[in-house]
Amino acid sequence: MRGLMQSQPLLVSDLLVFAERFHGNVEIVSRRVEGDIHRHTFRDAARRARQVAAALDGEELLRGERVATLAWNGYRHVELYFGVSGSGRVLHTINPRLTSEQIRWIVEHAQDSVFCFESSFLPIVQAIWSDCPSVQRWVILCDHDKLPTDTGIGNLISYEAWIGEQEAQYHWPRLDEESACGLCYTSGTSGDPKGVLYSHRSTVLHSFAVAMPDALCLSARDTVLPVVPMFHVNAWGLIYAAAAVGFKLVLPGPLLDGASVYQLIEEEGVTLAAGVPTVWQMLLGYLRDHGRRFSTLRRTVIGGSAVPPSMYNEFVDQHGVEVIHAWGMTETSPVGAVATLRASQLGLDMAQQRSLRLKQGHPLFGIDMRIIDETGQALHWDGKACGDLQVRGHWVIRAYYPGGDSEKACDLLEDGWFSTGDIATIDGDGFMQITDRSKDVIKSGGEWISSVEMENIAMAHPAVAMAACIGVRHPKWDERPVLVVMRKPGAELSRDELLALYEAQVAKWQIPDDVLFVEQIPLGATGKVQKNKLRALCRDYVTWAA
Amino acid sequence: MRGLMQSQPLLVSDLLVFAERFHGNVEIVSRRVEGDIHRHTFRDAARRARQVAAALDGEELLRGERVATLAWNGYRHVELYFGVSGSGRVLHTINPRLTSEQIRWIVEHAQDSVFCFESSFLPIVQAIWSDCPSVQRWVILCDHDKLPTDTGIGNLISYEAWIGEQEAQYHWPRLDEESACGLCYTSGTSGDPKGVLYSHRSTVLHSFAVAMPDALCLSARDTVLPVVPMFHVNAWGLIYAAAAVGFKLVLPGPLLDGASVYQLIEEEGVTLAAGVPTVWQMLLGYLRDHGRRFSTLRRTVIGGSAVPPSMYNEFVDQHGVEVIHAWGMTETSPVGAVATLRASQLGLDMAQQRSLRLKQGHPLFGIDMRIIDETGQALHWDGKACGDLQVRGHWVIRAYYPGGDSEKACDLLEDGWFSTGDIATIDGDGFMQITDRSKDVIKSGGEWISSVEMENIAMAHPAVAMAACIGVRHPKWDERPVLVVMRKPGAELSRDELLALYEAQVAKWQIPDDVLFVEQIPLGATGKVQKNKLRALCRDYVTWAA
Repeated sequence: MRGLMQSQPLLVSDLLVFAERFHGNVEIVSRRVEGDIHRHTFRDAARRARQVAAALDGEELLRGERVATLAWNGYRHVELYFGVSGSGRVLHTINPRLTSEQIRWIVEHAQDSVFCFESSFLPIVQAIWSDCPSVQRWVILCDHDKLPTDTGIGNLISYEAWIGEQEAQYHWPRLDEESACGLCYTSGTSGDPKGVLYSHRSTVLHSFAVAMPDALCLSARDTVLPVVPMFHVNAWGLIYAAAAVGFKLVLPGPLLDGASVYQLIEEEGVTLAAGVPTVWQMLLGYLRDHGRRFSTLRRTVIGGSAVPPSMYNEFVDQHGVEVIHAWGMTETSPVGAVATLRASQLGLDMAQQRSLRLKQGHPLFGIDMRIIDETGQALHWDGKACGDLQVRGHWVIRAYYPGGDSEKACDLLEDGWFSTGDIATIDGDGFMQITDRSKDVIKSGGEWISSVEMENIAMAHPAVAMAACIGVRHPKWDERPVLVVMRKPGAELSRDELLALYEAQVAKWQIPDDVLFVEQIPLGATGKVQKNKLRALCRDYVTWAA
Repeated sequence: MRGLMQSQPLLVSDLLVFAERFHGNVEIVSRRVEGDIHRHTFRDAARRARQVAAALDGEELLRGERVATLAWNGYRHVELYFGVSGSGRVLHTINPRLTSEQIRWIVEHAQDSVFCFESSFLPIVQAIWSDCPSVQRWVILCDHDKLPTDTGIGNLISYEAWIGEQEAQYHWPRLDEESACGLCYTSGTSGDPKGVLYSHRSTVLHSFAVAMPDALCLSARDTVLPVVPMFHVNAWGLIYAAAAVGFKLVLPGPLLDGASVYQLIEEEGVTLAAGVPTVWQMLLGYLRDHGRRFSTLRRTVIGGSAVPPSMYNEFVDQHGVEVIHAWGMTETSPVGAVATLRASQLGLDMAQQRSLRLKQGHPLFGIDMRIIDETGQALHWDGKACGDLQVRGHWVIRAYYPGGDSEKACDLLEDGWFSTGDIATIDGDGFMQITDRSKDVIKSGGEWISSVEMENIAMAHPAVAMAACIGVRHPKWDERPVLVVMRKPGAELSRDELLALYEAQVAKWQIPDDVLFVEQIPLGATGKVQKNKLRALCRDYVTWAA
């Protein structure tokens, strides 16, 4: 027997329709590539998203065709989020930190039909456009009078001219909620990038989940600054959640330095800011150097990589800003777990609470997790046993995108579970802690050493700007840990001084054998340390301590 | 092109599975009909819900068959919520405040197969059981050794004996998410009761919505007391939300008097309590009479009927307890709107904020609203124009239950909208305010007078325990308002003294013509004033003031 409630699809367009009806006056404030601040509202965004949809109709794009964006966090990108997906096309966000060749590869794989980009990325597009035969229209996100001349690019138009001609009336189609709405490629540190194809349903359910009190606790009383990019993992769902909840969005454009981010936070009254640790390092450095305080910021959401304990302490103890540690990946839409506390944990002392809040956290309803051993057996949740982390749920991937219009996707799942590639523990309260990426874990004499744990100890030293721990080949122990460390400018720190830190904190056999001081640690397009490059650097390294 | 995310049904059983895995130690504390306090956890509830499911398999109930409950808020009722729905049957909650004949009518209409009831309702069941041929099994929610003897009821068993024989292993079926999971009949103040048939999908989506920060803001740090009954409109979704979020549940059983509710709040550390105004009148009266204070309560959710401003003030000003005014109906699962503020409203002065918070509020994402005039035209959102309130959304009814196993439901919707029977305004921020039930509005000389507005003015007088305003026939003006007032015990208040209150607050033609003081105002099964009875009382009443 079926229920007798209204049955409507869960659609991205409905998020925007709701925002227009009930939060029409809420602002979207954006820093543009031109450097100025642009302000409009959800009412404006809704009208212009309909014009985007009409422009795509004008291009005769079919449902399911891909529209690429190479853009910062800004209002036109917001309009594309809703206009592209809402009209049944697939929003393909591209990471501008990839190489031109990677971008060209991705555009060809996705067979993008329209390509929208910021004027600051013109050189990238000039390098690739003639090798992207699927793209029928190139759109620069600028005013008509700012359209660069003599670009050499065919079928180029300014965004404002492109949508400006369109009617503001548009009837959003009632799509199947399982239709694809978005596409994001993983950064591909090993092998080719892989595309994750989100559905309207997965995206809307994820919006509910990220807004929940035990996740980011997003209300219409918040002003939210997503420093986390809209070009990767959908800015952690904050654009969709903004429409569902009706909070003010503050979008930083290209300027992510400490001074610029601080200025936006203060001038726009930001209450919650979300980003990766690298960005917060810059912001906290700025505050330290200039003796600044936050007047409205109450919470930071930190994800993308583990929160260094020293960063947690600085936010909480120095600035009274709550740190919400979140975990996820492109394949989980991205939010899979959040380290917010339960009633039973509020009685713990502050140090215990902190150590829980530094874990990757518990899943939200809609996601399930487990850890398994090498034979596929589920491991016990005692906070000690560690194994391969697997997840499943409404906004978890089933298969990677096979490319183009192909429907022949290859199911990834093992018995319904997606293997994340992380090694983790889960404690008795269901709090998950990642101890390593499975490919980064250091196997020494049959035991595992967590590269993340080794890095956190180094990162806590005030002279260390960044640290990475990798395994190097060893004739007796198979692998031994070695630290690669970038010192802060002008700071002094010796090998022995740093290694002495480990003696009180880890078992003797876990202490890194050596420290390599470097000028720069290579970061990938999503800001993660490229350990494969460090491993190449150390390929022929022979440890002294053997 | 379809997305490539995992596609799983939204199921009530998944809520409980999640709670068991990630919130297994969270407590469910219940006052039993025997008077004692029972404590167990979500882990226990999950095990026993599986036993309920197995017991229903033992009864050979097919999917879609109805299991009736006539029960207070308590742990066994929680187990039935999940065990019945999770196994594919339909949980039919029945309001014990209905008459025996109404209950018999409902059981026959629904063709319930199993009937579970508290021992305190034995007299009701003894009155109807022989006229309920569809019921094959009667279950008393008690221990085996407390099973009453000589009841005369055939196929009677205690709940503990019924589930105690079952295996704790059970594989929850992967149902179609559109399957019916619950059934609740409206109180039927006019005509026969009408059944609302919830689906798994509507119920799970509603759980997300009620937990959101701009709704009840439910976190795993809360301890929640649903005084609102599980036997009607699913205790506002709080049981399902408890499993999704992992908060502690405190269930008051049959004792809803001020002293008992206060004791539970204090002893269990309740942070949020939810109920109708009548219950809070008793609680606030108790606090006043005994000089008590709340030590943990931070928020009350009030719905079911409009919050009297005097009650709002007493909670907020005297006790520092936030009042969250929520609106909904059986047909909206029930939460349709909540009066929580937005950032733009936080700058208003306290009186303005209060008047917004006393409105029925804004819908949550997933619900849309409009007001229409008599010709069906949508009215402007200016906070003044009032018209018929219509809603639509994921947890709004499409058709009433036709009864039995029948699938032939008759669609209720007008152009996709459900007419609530309320008259309302909507302001520029999308805040909806109900001015009346359409059948209660008083039409005087071609103008509308809101009975709710007239009642609120009377209710603000300290000598008034309860007030209702109804229209009485008038030869010149068609209808004129008359107040029916129940004074507080021992309080004195004259007609002229009360009517004098209106002069500064409403237009002269809106002032009620007269006041009838009564000993008791009749309330229906869900605690609402039975205005049809008052109208009958006043049928031949001729106004003095004509």
